[in-house]
Amino acid sequence: MKKIINKPEDVVKECLMGLQMANSDTLEYIPEKEVIYRKNMDKKVAVISGGGAGHEPLHAGFVGKGMLDAAVSGNVFSSPSPDRIEAAIEKVEKGQGVLFVIKNYSGDIMNFGMAQDMAEMEGIQVESVVVKDDVAVPDSTYSTGRRGIAGTMFVHKIAGAMAETGAPLSEVAGVAREVVANLRSMGMAMSPCILPAVGRPGFTLGENEIEIGMGIHGEPGVEKTTMKTAKEIAEILLQKILDDYDYEGSEVAVLVNGLGGTPLMELYILNYEVQKLLKEKNITSYKTFVGNYTTSLEMTGCSLSLLKLNDKMKTLLDASCDTPAFKID
Amino acid sequence: MKKIINKPEDVVKECLMGLQMANSDTLEYIPEKEVIYRKNMDKKVAVISGGGAGHEPLHAGFVGKGMLDAAVSGNVFSSPSPDRIEAAIEKVEKGQGVLFVIKNYSGDIMNFGMAQDMAEMEGIQVESVVVKDDVAVPDSTYSTGRRGIAGTMFVHKIAGAMAETGAPLSEVAGVAREVVANLRSMGMAMSPCILPAVGRPGFTLGENEIEIGMGIHGEPGVEKTTMKTAKEIAEILLQKILDDYDYEGSEVAVLVNGLGGTPLMELYILNYEVQKLLKEKNITSYKTFVGNYTTSLEMTGCSLSLLKLNDKMKTLLDASCDTPAFKID
Repeated sequence: MKKIINKPEDVVKECLMGLQMANSDTLEYIPEKEVIYRKNMDKKVAVISGGGAGHEPLHAGFVGKGMLDAAVSGNVFSSPSPDRIEAAIEKVEKGQGVLFVIKNYSGDIMNFGMAQDMAEMEGIQVESVVVKDDVAVPDSTYSTGRRGIAGTMFVHKIAGAMAETGAPLSEVAGVAREVVANLRSMGMAMSPCILPAVGRPGFTLGENEIEIGMGIHGEPGVEKTTMKTAKEIAEILLQKILDDYDYEGSEVAVLVNGLGGTPLMELYILNYEVQKLLKEKNITSYKTFVGNYTTSLEMTGCSLSLLKLNDKMKTLLDASCDTPAFKID
Repeated sequence: MKKIINKPEDVVKECLMGLQMANSDTLEYIPEKEVIYRKNMDKKVAVISGGGAGHEPLHAGFVGKGMLDAAVSGNVFSSPSPDRIEAAIEKVEKGQGVLFVIKNYSGDIMNFGMAQDMAEMEGIQVESVVVKDDVAVPDSTYSTGRRGIAGTMFVHKIAGAMAETGAPLSEVAGVAREVVANLRSMGMAMSPCILPAVGRPGFTLGENEIEIGMGIHGEPGVEKTTMKTAKEIAEILLQKILDDYDYEGSEVAVLVNGLGGTPLMELYILNYEVQKLLKEKNITSYKTFVGNYTTSLEMTGCSLSLLKLNDKMKTLLDASCDTPAFKID
């Protein structure tokens, strides 16, 4: 295993501290709790997200003005415990309530649920929105129902922008649910990743083999098949999304996301194919994001996400935002 | 070879088109010339850079307000021909002259030199600044003298900000040369990359082997050694830089750059170690950037760059900037 790390048990802590040190003007870190939170936050609804580590920049890289107020990290690929989530609430809750943005994995649902119960017992208003954008499989190794994957970034962005306007919790949660309802993602993987504490790949794929619909923790997808061209990959991912949700005639936000080990050149080539297909299918790309936003350590592969936009969502998507990994003027 | 591409001979064109399509509000593409240039540019000095493809987001990802006005791409890991550079000049030269930012590789020096000669024959004022930030080796496979690597981004940013102020060519070139004089980088690689047209790795490294000082095209570095911890890697890279340039007591810009296949988690862990060392050595980190900015396809590894800042450079580094891969409010 060749990774730039020290001890496997310290990767999450040191990663978050390295992020905070690179952004010390805007971010704070809570030791032992693996929470990154915003400095200088106004009185407003707090938007908190989190989950397992190993998906950087998600979640901590999206903390900042106009997006998340705090991100809570578990260990690599495992949920943060409720006490960590409580520590985040303590730092960013300003009397206006809290929105949890949760990816649909059983551990996250349970731990954020417990944190919600505890916060509510203390009189803090909490709403939870569960993201389940992955159309690959109806249920998965770690989820009842669809998994939450890269499209989650759009929920962070749009709910974060709504909170920044000073809107009440019900409206912030409302627009987050609207995003979830109009968001679909589909991915594929080409090679595995190695958990630092394990030291060997969690699964294998043959020299010419890829897996369509594989999850961001290496959970099985739809099928293993042979390597395809960028054009074929774009067609497969988009078709699976369109089989589930009719985007024809809509304006959409597009995310071409890399899984960590796939370089930007390949993601841009995929985007080239995606944009041509969208045009053919009478879907208008309002804004497109290409990059490594939700990764799986060094896994290679990608996902495609589409979000159908209305005018309100467009305004919120375009609103200025300043986080380490996502900035809009 | 598992890459998200179509035909190997089309990767550069399709990558640039995919980039342009994701940024169609701000960027234009010149077909057949592999040039990305800015829409809506004011009358000012034009800053142009370029070089081989395969280093994405460098160079085209840095085209936009406050940074580059055009980027010219060659094929993967090979220099752009002079006619491509001329095509870029034609689009962005506004009568105020052109600054070329060239990484020190023989092919780039020759081709940008020819383009400069041709432009000057047409009465266009051109200044060239050559970046040679890599302290690893005095000469290399593709360069006489030191190579230009990831630190080049700082030259783009600071020269681009100076040009945006309306300063004359001599001042834009002057500050670019000041950046080059105070900039040092050092890298290491853990695994090779595969050129799309070749289909197999250009070199090999053993299961537990890394190469210190390897170039961004896989050119040999200082030594092959065994895998190290993040702390040791930070120490080796920083010490080699400090042996060459005395940053003690200075304020610096820091770049922890990934080579394409190394995920952000590892780069943040490296930054954690780098920041601790800088403090110990009485070097103040004014601003830190962590990410995949100058890559080598899917190579794994990283580089560290330091730039000693003065007040003028700080102002220019902080100036607002809007490009696909580098944004400052």
